[in-house]
Amino acid sequence: MNFPSKVVENAVEHLSRLPGIGKRTALRLVLHLLKQDKTTVQGFGDAFIKLTNNINYCSSCFSIAESQICEICANTNRDKTIICVVEDIRVLLAIESTMQYKGVYHVLGGLISPIDGIGPTDLRIEELVQKAENSDVKEVILSLSTTMEGDTTNYYLFRRLSPCGVKISSIARGIAIGDELEYTDQLTLATAISSRMPYENSLSK
Amino acid sequence: MNFPSKVVENAVEHLSRLPGIGKRTALRLVLHLLKQDKTTVQGFGDAFIKLTNNINYCSSCFSIAESQICEICANTNRDKTIICVVEDIRVLLAIESTMQYKGVYHVLGGLISPIDGIGPTDLRIEELVQKAENSDVKEVILSLSTTMEGDTTNYYLFRRLSPCGVKISSIARGIAIGDELEYTDQLTLATAISSRMPYENSLSK
Repeated sequence: MNFPSKVVENAVEHLSRLPGIGKRTALRLVLHLLKQDKTTVQGFGDAFIKLTNNINYCSSCFSIAESQICEICANTNRDKTIICVVEDIRVLLAIESTMQYKGVYHVLGGLISPIDGIGPTDLRIEELVQKAENSDVKEVILSLSTTMEGDTTNYYLFRRLSPCGVKISSIARGIAIGDELEYTDQLTLATAISSRMPYENSLSK
Repeated sequence: MNFPSKVVENAVEHLSRLPGIGKRTALRLVLHLLKQDKTTVQGFGDAFIKLTNNINYCSSCFSIAESQICEICANTNRDKTIICVVEDIRVLLAIESTMQYKGVYHVLGGLISPIDGIGPTDLRIEELVQKAENSDVKEVILSLSTTMEGDTTNYYLFRRLSPCGVKISSIARGIAIGDELEYTDQLTLATAISSRMPYENSLSK
């Protein structure tokens, strides 16, 4: 495409570098922004410039934080003996929004994926093992996606954490709440049957 | 969602205000940006701040331009006697990329859509009529989408332009190149039959 303005082209270029946004969508979004008033668009640009300067990562759980330690790790009411291992902060936020979990987190920063060139050393696994070696930690909950990469990472973490003598658990796998068994895939159904749980535990809260 | 950082929340907030981008997608994009190096993210923010300052609209065709007059209107090789009326600059760029059209454009800035509260006065229709009244202009090509709003706008423009004595044409409607007739909808098929054209004209270039 031959853009009539370098400024527009530059904005489209930047937007289309984001995952899942192509040139056409980027142009649509830029034209939308051009219809907004000046302060809105400047606020939009500002929001991203600030991203580079005002972001810290929690030195304990590696979640995004406003200071050295994130709010969750700093909260004395959270149970520091339970660590929930998550892929990234999106999963952390999703679990937090359930308001069911009272322990702390450990953000891995990704999953082991040889096809994408991501090995164990690219993730914050050593830091997790160090935490697990600390006798205060009683349980590590592996909360990774039930994908090939998630399973690989789960298995690797299990192997690394086992010598620490910590209890290692995984989030339950089974039929999602609201799903009809008729349409559930075979693998999920097989897993759900073999991992059957006491009826009382199955009640959704 | 309870974001762990106001800066992240602010960036997510701004992104999710764009059409078609929800909170989850916005968070995914912001986390992607956080993984990039500093200059990339600052360039991203900068690109939008510049949008507000360095954008002009062509005083003739209302396309986006770097100076008073856009490149197309300033080009002496373009035929100023033919005006192609388009909804927005996206259509203009799409037509330009075909490299078939040698006339100039007129960007309406939208389509008449009572349901969205957009009437004829919200679009650059008066400016088009003024151009058409100029005896230099020989033909106005209506290149609007074949939607309800496009048809309404076409009809309105036809009524307004008719007294000017200018030739008014519309882009051809029919079967898209590569489409199978078996799967073409009835309305398109009916239009294509009633608007049949000499065989020579139907050959795609």
